[in-house]
Amino acid sequence: MIMRFHINLLTLFPEMFPGFLGHSLAGRALERGDWAYTCVQIRDFGEGKHQTVDDTPFGGGAGMVMRADVIEKALLSLPNTGRKIYMSPRGKVLNQSLVKELSAEPVLTVLCGRYEGVDQRVLDAQEFEEISIGDYVLSGGEVAALTMMDACIRLLPGVMGNEATPDEESFSSGLLEYPHYTRPAEWNGMGVPDVLKSGNHAEIAKWRHNQSLEITQKRRPDLIKKGS
Amino acid sequence: MIMRFHINLLTLFPEMFPGFLGHSLAGRALERGDWAYTCVQIRDFGEGKHQTVDDTPFGGGAGMVMRADVIEKALLSLPNTGRKIYMSPRGKVLNQSLVKELSAEPVLTVLCGRYEGVDQRVLDAQEFEEISIGDYVLSGGEVAALTMMDACIRLLPGVMGNEATPDEESFSSGLLEYPHYTRPAEWNGMGVPDVLKSGNHAEIAKWRHNQSLEITQKRRPDLIKKGS
Repeated sequence: MIMRFHINLLTLFPEMFPGFLGHSLAGRALERGDWAYTCVQIRDFGEGKHQTVDDTPFGGGAGMVMRADVIEKALLSLPNTGRKIYMSPRGKVLNQSLVKELSAEPVLTVLCGRYEGVDQRVLDAQEFEEISIGDYVLSGGEVAALTMMDACIRLLPGVMGNEATPDEESFSSGLLEYPHYTRPAEWNGMGVPDVLKSGNHAEIAKWRHNQSLEITQKRRPDLIKKGS
Repeated sequence: MIMRFHINLLTLFPEMFPGFLGHSLAGRALERGDWAYTCVQIRDFGEGKHQTVDDTPFGGGAGMVMRADVIEKALLSLPNTGRKIYMSPRGKVLNQSLVKELSAEPVLTVLCGRYEGVDQRVLDAQEFEEISIGDYVLSGGEVAALTMMDACIRLLPGVMGNEATPDEESFSSGLLEYPHYTRPAEWNGMGVPDVLKSGNHAEIAKWRHNQSLEITQKRRPDLIKKGS
């Protein structure tokens, strides 16, 4: 059987997986075998009686650093790593085009850091690609890995089922989405823009595009600069 | 008892909470009562025998839109909402300064959308603040809510314990972090920069700052522009 999308996770918290990916669309896709994951407990490769995985940083400072040798042993226990990713606030910022690219890979290996970080040498020697899900600090790489996996899994063939097609959504046009309205047509004194009830598909498409442009210009002018 | 940080979640998937926030630092903080959460199942406020929460969009198109009236009823079931947040790719992009601001609130109410989105009128009428965790599409707002909560919870007093102090980390200086090194000093033919073994704290601080500057200039010049 050819696996469509297999994620190896190097983590100190295997109990965090599959987490929310065990529910809803991703959960049903996991049961069907549309994707799968393997957790490698980094501690199993720790040093000495206490299976130590970290040590104090050279040069001093708060926090502990995960050891290069321990992480490399954990990594080398995998038969096939595919593209190697380290979740890190220093990384390339995840966006929808990177999500599409990753979801087309057969295998990814994701290193989830904890504490102050990981010894730079194992990132260099093993050529980990650093990816960040945003400019904020999380308790660990597991949170970032789960978020990135969620974004990838929903793009796998068959996962979305009858739900919205991924192409019609935010970011595929390079713009933010237009506002949505549904029944009741009148609610708390507020109606729905007439054009949406007109049945004129060309006018509706034009209105939606203009709304997308307007909201993007107002909230995220940086997206328009990038796209032009 | 005064609750430090209470999150109300409006969701169709209450089983996704606390998820990974039940483990590790956030999990112990939850047990101690440093933070708490309440899930409101939106479906409990749905219409008719099938407790319908969504309907087709005015103007046509793929996907379903969550109804304004149903969401408002779910919201009004809460005795105290605090700041109202809707997780949405159209929102203000989360960063560490917004995380700090949110973690200082006593109560937040987070609306987790599913399907194509939420009727615009309830967002307007109830003055939901829209927040995005990044420029990618997720299966639902729950994933974004959990990520945002993780970033906030680790900043609550007492949660980090003996781990790295939040102030020494990424983004607090406006720059990406310098590389870390720990034992062994020699690994696979790779050493540790001499300065880090020098014991000269001023030189170490200077080296780290220069490394931070260099890596930020190379990977994220946008952060330097913002800070200046």
